[in-house]
Amino acid sequence: MEIYLIRHGIAQEREIGIPDEVRSLTNKGKDKTRQVAGRLYDLGVRFDVVLTSPLVRSRQTAEILHEYKLSREITESAHLAPNGSIYDWLDWLKAQQYPQQTQLALVGHQPNLGQWAEILVWGEDRARLILKKAGIIGLTLPETDSPIGQAQLFWLTPPKFLL
Amino acid sequence: MEIYLIRHGIAQEREIGIPDEVRSLTNKGKDKTRQVAGRLYDLGVRFDVVLTSPLVRSRQTAEILHEYKLSREITESAHLAPNGSIYDWLDWLKAQQYPQQTQLALVGHQPNLGQWAEILVWGEDRARLILKKAGIIGLTLPETDSPIGQAQLFWLTPPKFLL
Repeated sequence: MEIYLIRHGIAQEREIGIPDEVRSLTNKGKDKTRQVAGRLYDLGVRFDVVLTSPLVRSRQTAEILHEYKLSREITESAHLAPNGSIYDWLDWLKAQQYPQQTQLALVGHQPNLGQWAEILVWGEDRARLILKKAGIIGLTLPETDSPIGQAQLFWLTPPKFLL
Repeated sequence: MEIYLIRHGIAQEREIGIPDEVRSLTNKGKDKTRQVAGRLYDLGVRFDVVLTSPLVRSRQTAEILHEYKLSREITESAHLAPNGSIYDWLDWLKAQQYPQQTQLALVGHQPNLGQWAEILVWGEDRARLILKKAGIIGLTLPETDSPIGQAQLFWLTPPKFLL
């Protein structure tokens, strides 16, 4: 299985009175995310499902991937919210029994996505992966009960190399 | 300092009677490497120096990077040959006293380059990074006596995402 960890685009700054979960993409964030989505389409990247954090900035990022026909399906996953746990998500993933050739996009937040990638690839998180807003990490998960420390990294890119 | 580990392009197969060090890029390997170099140029990637393994297939790859004006300088480094040691290379690097903003390309072979990247980022090699021929790994080395286990990964791409 291939998973693509995609960080949401540039969003409104944190501000007193605006709950974190409703911060939305700025116009610049939308434009850049659209450019990334268009380039992914041209590169032939496709997803069977886009899973997204329920927070507005991630949801909007996932909708842009959908608009650009990278996936027919968007599903919200509370595991991808900033307080989500990769272990809970892996339990959920196992229960789905997706076929091995499935390609999933996971749209969410930092530091979570970088931590998840490092835990999947090296079994622990050392904050060594730089994942920019609208950036992507691509991992291959082996067919195994637990992919922790067993995944391979085939892609990590900031958006500037996708424009 | 940023270092870009670049694997040589597609080369002639191993064959009895052809020493490994003279195997050269195939026409397809040259074409693909040229496409990658052109895209790197358009993306604004530049190197102060291209260091290359002395083996013909790496040397040719480095020359293509030079033809596409990614760097004005190519230097052979025996440390980048298949039996080279990252520790010896780091000693060499320290002696150069390059300024912190230097951008170096290292053209060489697998499994070496993937191993070097993992040793720089996580302190050990677990063969978890997939580096295709003409693929690239981008690392930021901190200003420190030994960057082992201290580097950050900002890019890893197969050539298919650079065409």
